[in-house]
Formats: sequence, structure tokens, C-alpha cells
Amino acid sequence: MEFKEILNHARFSQVGFVVRDIEATKALFAKLFNVEEPETRPDAGQFEVTGTEIYGKPAPKANAKLAFMDLVPGVQLELIEPNEEPSVWRDAMEKYGEGIHHIAFNCENADEVAELLVKEFGGTIEQRGKYGDASGQYIYIDCFDQLKCRIELLESFR
Amino acid sequence: MEFKEILNHARFSQVGFVVRDIEATKALFAKLFNVEEPETRPDAGQFEVTGTEIYGKPAPKANAKLAFMDLVPGVQLELIEPNEEPSVWRDAMEKYGEGIHHIAFNCENADEVAELLVKEFGGTIEQRGKYGDASGQYIYIDCFDQLKCRIELLESFR
Repeated sequence: MEFKEILNHARFSQVGFVVRDIEATKALFAKLFNVEEPETRPDAGQFEVTGTEIYGKPAPKANAKLAFMDLVPGVQLELIEPNEEPSVWRDAMEKYGEGIHHIAFNCENADEVAELLVKEFGGTIEQRGKYGDASGQYIYIDCFDQLKCRIELLESFR
Repeated sequence: MEFKEILNHARFSQVGFVVRDIEATKALFAKLFNVEEPETRPDAGQFEVTGTEIYGKPAPKANAKLAFMDLVPGVQLELIEPNEEPSVWRDAMEKYGEGIHHIAFNCENADEVAELLVKEFGGTIEQRGKYGDASGQYIYIDCFDQLKCRIELLESFR
């Protein structure tokens, strides 16, 4: 695993927010950006497909509604309304309130980049799972100590 | 002032962080992105030029060290190490700790967009000033209630 190679393949792609009322916040951002309101996905997928894990343990009930808008081409605003179950989303909202939750990077090798963030940047893997249609995976890594934020890695399998 | 026109001219351009030690955090992000460490600007400019205002009142002592890196072309990571004086940066760090402080948009008409954020999105102008070389202006607007974040408007006069 060559350090240089991995990082050059990660591309900034998202600013993610946790919100209490995704419909209300979505409407406001659509008005702000003067775009049509995007559809709200009712959940992030079913556990049988996503295999959601929180701190390495299966979390079949953790879920959230999702909506996406372009900030600029290739960089999205993600709105996340967590359900009531513990998750990286619900826990952050309980603790810090609504607001910016993570920045995300697309990469081709999320497992390796996650390992690097853990080993070289003091990160902790908080939650991970496959996309609802099994077309990729996400990994949330608490990098607050060194990088002052939560980083999400996104990997498309296609 | 036509709503549609204004918002289409605002372009997402920055994720800004407040940090306690800009040199240490800068070194870590440079390692993460595999780039040279950018220079640190020793301050955001002198009051005689910037005319910094906080909640509409002159704030000659508010200042910060700054460093910038590209997240993707056209979108920067900004690191901000506030000095000890009250400012939108120092106050946020005292209250919430280090971390993501704002998202910024470039626009051609920051005063009008700020007015719109205040009137239509419940925003509050927190701090504003000219760039250190007088080539533009910035306006920080607390939009937490409706848009769940702080928005910075950036306007180049050139």
C-alpha cells in the first residue's frame, strides 16, 4: 500500500448535515439554490443488504432518511434525518444538535484508506455499511482529534 | 433584486475550520492530501484596510492566521487559527471547540445575498470585513436556525 497513491485517488465529494426535519430543511436549501426539491429516500437501505455496523457490531435498526443536492458539480450537500435508533447520525445530533456532520471523499479503496486514517491519523471507525442497492460502501471515521472532523469514505463497486 | 438571479450566481467555494494550532493541523492535512504545506498568512489583514465589524461594531483587534488548500479545483479547505480577541472564529472555538466553522460561497453581490439570507432565511450577520489587500469582502451569516450552518459570502471586487 503506497501512501501517495491512495490519497491521490480520494476525491472530496460531499458535505453532510444531520437534521431533525428533512422535508423542511430540504425545502429551504432548494429555495436557497433555486433548484427543484430532490426526492427524499425513505431509508439508507435494508440491513439484509447494508449490513450496517456500529463500532464493529451489527446495527440492524440504525437508519436515516436521505436527500441530496449539488453544491457544485461533483460535490453534494447531503441531508440526513436519523431515525430514533443509535447511529453515527442520531448520536451526533443528540450530542451536538443539527448541523454539519461530515465531509466525504470518494475513493476506489475505502478499506485501505480507512486503515490509513486509523493508523496514521488517529481515526476511529464509527459506522460502516453497504449502499441500499449494494452498489458500494461507506465508512464513517472519527478524525476529530487530528483532522478536526468526521470523514466519510465512499466507494462505488461498479 | 431578483431572487432567482442572485442565488444562481453564488458558487460553493470553501469549507472553513477553526483550529487551535494551524501549523500542526496544516501539516496533517497536507500529509492527508499529499500536497506541499501551504504558507500560513500571519493575519487576515490590518483593520485600517479590513474595517472588520462584529455585529455592526468596529472590531480592530479581531484577527486570525489563515491557510488554504484545495479540496477539489475551485473548492478550498480553509484553516483558521483565531487570536485571543472576540471574533466569529474565536467565539465559535470557545463555544464548540475546533472543527468545521462555515461553508462559503463566492458571489458577485455579497451585500444583496446577505440581505436575502437575513430577510428570507432568518440569518444574522455576525462579522464582515474587507480582504487584507482590499481586493474583496467577506460576510459571515449565522443561518443555523433554518440552514443549520454558518454561511460565509465572498466577493471579489476585481
